[in-house]
Amino acid sequence: MGKVICDITMSIDGYSAGLDQTEERPFGDDGGDGTGDKLHAWMFDTPEENRAEVDQFAAARAFIMGRNMFGPVRGAWDRQWNGWWGPNPPFHAPVFVLTHHARDPQPMDGGTTYSFVTDGVGPALAQARTAAVDGDVLIAGGATTINQYLAAGLVDELRLHVVPLTLGAGTRLFDGVPALKLEQVGSRAASLVTHLTYRVVP
Amino acid sequence: MGKVICDITMSIDGYSAGLDQTEERPFGDDGGDGTGDKLHAWMFDTPEENRAEVDQFAAARAFIMGRNMFGPVRGAWDRQWNGWWGPNPPFHAPVFVLTHHARDPQPMDGGTTYSFVTDGVGPALAQARTAAVDGDVLIAGGATTINQYLAAGLVDELRLHVVPLTLGAGTRLFDGVPALKLEQVGSRAASLVTHLTYRVVP
Repeated sequence: MGKVICDITMSIDGYSAGLDQTEERPFGDDGGDGTGDKLHAWMFDTPEENRAEVDQFAAARAFIMGRNMFGPVRGAWDRQWNGWWGPNPPFHAPVFVLTHHARDPQPMDGGTTYSFVTDGVGPALAQARTAAVDGDVLIAGGATTINQYLAAGLVDELRLHVVPLTLGAGTRLFDGVPALKLEQVGSRAASLVTHLTYRVVP
Repeated sequence: MGKVICDITMSIDGYSAGLDQTEERPFGDDGGDGTGDKLHAWMFDTPEENRAEVDQFAAARAFIMGRNMFGPVRGAWDRQWNGWWGPNPPFHAPVFVLTHHARDPQPMDGGTTYSFVTDGVGPALAQARTAAVDGDVLIAGGATTINQYLAAGLVDELRLHVVPLTLGAGTRLFDGVPALKLEQVGSRAASLVTHLTYRVVP
């Protein structure tokens, strides 16, 4: 059976998104000037340097994300929103979106299908495990979703991309999560980020 | 003129100490079994591997620390407490302790003198700068003290020793500090810790 991995970018003060998400600003107020995503500058400004981490992300065989990571639409699906990532999303695998509002699965190009799970983090993981067969399940965020999985003791590995800025407010990783024992199994510096890989010690 | 450097160990969820400090447990509840300091295991269990960071710490020409870092005594100095570090502390330089309670300077062996500053972070830094001449001033913690210096915009460099555990509660670095722009100027992995060095962009 594959691993359950959380993979997320955070500021050094632990935030994975600022306040006030909008359609134009998926990560909310990140202290930037609105022209770019400061948290993920490492991914877009220095892609070659960080190819290993992006490839590792894409190697998962199923993904889970919270609804706020999926999009800015709240409440009922009164609008056809198909994610931030265009017609051919970078997942190329089943993606399970946690939501309180049922919706039919949405197939996309390139092997991605968005499925909407309304019965919570446990059932979403069960579905993702089945879909991943013997591959890894990757919980892509946001922090609120990852915190639920961490608090439930369902995570094997944590991959953190720690970036040199603080947000001071927003959605914070580990918020409300009881103390965890971790083992550092990887740590790699790039110019705009440090990639940390921790095993969660049961 | 030297730099003003903050140098502190933190859990990946941002805590530099757990709750409930006692004389036996300077860092409070760190999730360990009380037999050792989990946050600083990198320093004591793998000293050779981390010698560069310890040497860099010791190279400062003056130090500042908060009273809780200095000791467990609260309120008036009704007891002769001379720090956690024995008769020959590892500072070998002037150490300025922030406190609300005046006390005469306390010389120690090896060049360390503890001076007690009652008029706040600004005056403490002025005294430390004078003592350091053209050397660096190092703010050694705890997080509450560092947060005050960060919020006041008085810090040039942040050296974080990030360790693989979460505490979930305690004294948190960056708590109440407005958003900071940082530049990653160093990042080095050791087996039990990742050392991050950030320049604070004014």
